[in-house]
Amino acid sequence: MIPTLEWLPEGVNFLDQTKLPHEEVYVLATDYKQVATVIRDMITRGAMAIGVSGAMGVAIGIDRSTATDIPTLNAEVAEICAHLAATRPTAVNLFWGIDRVRDLYNSLAAKNTPIPEIKLAVIALANEMYDEDIANCKTLGANGAALLPQEGTILTHCNAGALAACGYGSALGVIRAAVEQGHKIDVIADETRPYLQGARLTAWELMKDNIPTTVACDNMAAYLMSKGRIQACIVGADRIAANGDTANKIGTFGVAILAKEFGIPFYVAAPWATIDVNTAHGDLIPIEQRDRKEVTHSNGKQMTPDNVGIENPAFDVTPSKYITAIITERGVLTAPFEESIARIADAAILA
Amino acid sequence: MIPTLEWLPEGVNFLDQTKLPHEEVYVLATDYKQVATVIRDMITRGAMAIGVSGAMGVAIGIDRSTATDIPTLNAEVAEICAHLAATRPTAVNLFWGIDRVRDLYNSLAAKNTPIPEIKLAVIALANEMYDEDIANCKTLGANGAALLPQEGTILTHCNAGALAACGYGSALGVIRAAVEQGHKIDVIADETRPYLQGARLTAWELMKDNIPTTVACDNMAAYLMSKGRIQACIVGADRIAANGDTANKIGTFGVAILAKEFGIPFYVAAPWATIDVNTAHGDLIPIEQRDRKEVTHSNGKQMTPDNVGIENPAFDVTPSKYITAIITERGVLTAPFEESIARIADAAILA
Repeated sequence: MIPTLEWLPEGVNFLDQTKLPHEEVYVLATDYKQVATVIRDMITRGAMAIGVSGAMGVAIGIDRSTATDIPTLNAEVAEICAHLAATRPTAVNLFWGIDRVRDLYNSLAAKNTPIPEIKLAVIALANEMYDEDIANCKTLGANGAALLPQEGTILTHCNAGALAACGYGSALGVIRAAVEQGHKIDVIADETRPYLQGARLTAWELMKDNIPTTVACDNMAAYLMSKGRIQACIVGADRIAANGDTANKIGTFGVAILAKEFGIPFYVAAPWATIDVNTAHGDLIPIEQRDRKEVTHSNGKQMTPDNVGIENPAFDVTPSKYITAIITERGVLTAPFEESIARIADAAILA
Repeated sequence: MIPTLEWLPEGVNFLDQTKLPHEEVYVLATDYKQVATVIRDMITRGAMAIGVSGAMGVAIGIDRSTATDIPTLNAEVAEICAHLAATRPTAVNLFWGIDRVRDLYNSLAAKNTPIPEIKLAVIALANEMYDEDIANCKTLGANGAALLPQEGTILTHCNAGALAACGYGSALGVIRAAVEQGHKIDVIADETRPYLQGARLTAWELMKDNIPTTVACDNMAAYLMSKGRIQACIVGADRIAANGDTANKIGTFGVAILAKEFGIPFYVAAPWATIDVNTAHGDLIPIEQRDRKEVTHSNGKQMTPDNVGIENPAFDVTPSKYITAIITERGVLTAPFEESIARIADAAILA
């Protein structure tokens, strides 16, 4: 079990993903501001992990509050949620995680529930969400496994693994489930500049599970596909619009276009919480631009000339026409995605 | 003038491209084995620079020989040429450069020319090839400039610039010529993993010429194209087959596919010497696989887990169907490339 994050009595404990694969060190966040820093600095990252981190951030904020009356606590909760929500704009799971705990808080506060009871309840919810996340990954993994070939090489981009979730992972969860079912699969991990989630994190966690893994630079995908070396692509998602357009780590869109050109299936694996039915299409998804230093510097050394322009969008949006299927814990969705997503969303409302 | 390489009485002086952009240091190769090391270790790189380096390597090998008779020198020249040819397999210019000096040597040796005269002649030829390279780049630059938009952003991959040649450059030569003709152009340089030719070299030399330049990670091209940010792509070449299939730095093929998907013209700029009419199509071009450490390590620090698989092909082959035009000093070639290449090859034989 990879300990991505964990609620402890003394705080939320995060595996520091900036230090992997060579150092397994932990960062203990003892208040909500420290949780926000952990998210913003990508000490933890990945849509699902960010979602539960957001929930735990609100829970720890409420738990550590010294407020003795509901109106004071209400004001604090508003500040806590705003602070956590301002960390990273793209992954919808962050807002979902924050909102779920806030909604529970609001309903309890409205009923004038004693503050100690509220604290226990929000902590319990955040921990439930943690368990749910792992269960969802396992279910979606099982749902998607049959889509992967019995034998072959799967390309993945970034890390949609146990490290991007509370465990098991989405894209890597599907790969894990396929391997558990006896598929003979090896993985090519795009290194995923600039943060190297593939080279550092995907490679690390798959090798821990003895799944054969090869790291390739992002620009090698067309070469590998043209040589028949890749049988399927699978990636995670940070936000999926109502029409299936998918925001994911920068570079995903390029992989999807190449896959289409070579006739290779391209799958997105994500829990239902990643689908944002309130966002009609991908152009409406905000794309986070990150610091230029992530691109210019490598291990503390500047690689580019001074003052050169830098692009550093953290995500891109793959239009749904490039996506073969979206794998969720509620089922495998195919085109037309607007309809398949609406169908499951309606079923969820009815349920 | 960027001093990529230079023949000096004491040896061939190379700007050490592994140290750019922050250190401008030189490596003096005083014998042919040192020239081979400079090529193999990518202290100098780029098809055109490698071609002239190969020629200078043969010339310095002959010049430093202590042989006093032609049969002895013949054997040494065979060894010199084989040693230099074994450095890097993909760029055809290397073999062209070696062969031109060897051919001159062979013809002079066959006539029993005095060895001191042979030495002067091969040195003179290597230096002529240096001048020719710059002249060819300027001519092909002028030939291609009109293809670039009057105003817009050009994406280039790797470095096909002055640093890849004896000066001026091929792809960057076309950009320089367009700027000289008044086009308002800025450049997006793919950083070009793993060696970072774009981030380190293209950015450095274009900023020296005050051409606005932005560095993007290789995986950002689809995002930038989808936003309408790129009006044309232009790259160099390491070997062009008789049908127009083009070997160039790994990642080029991916850019070409993306350009086609977005309807953006994709140009290859290379001197005629890069066209290998003896290679029928791209599948026949040998692709150099380089050391895994180039991918695993960054500034001396290992970024990947131990023992993970690594891909490190140095080049890929872009099929000619993705290429809008090939720009050479002998004219601009368009599809069907088999015919346009054959036409110019025939004209050259007749000339």
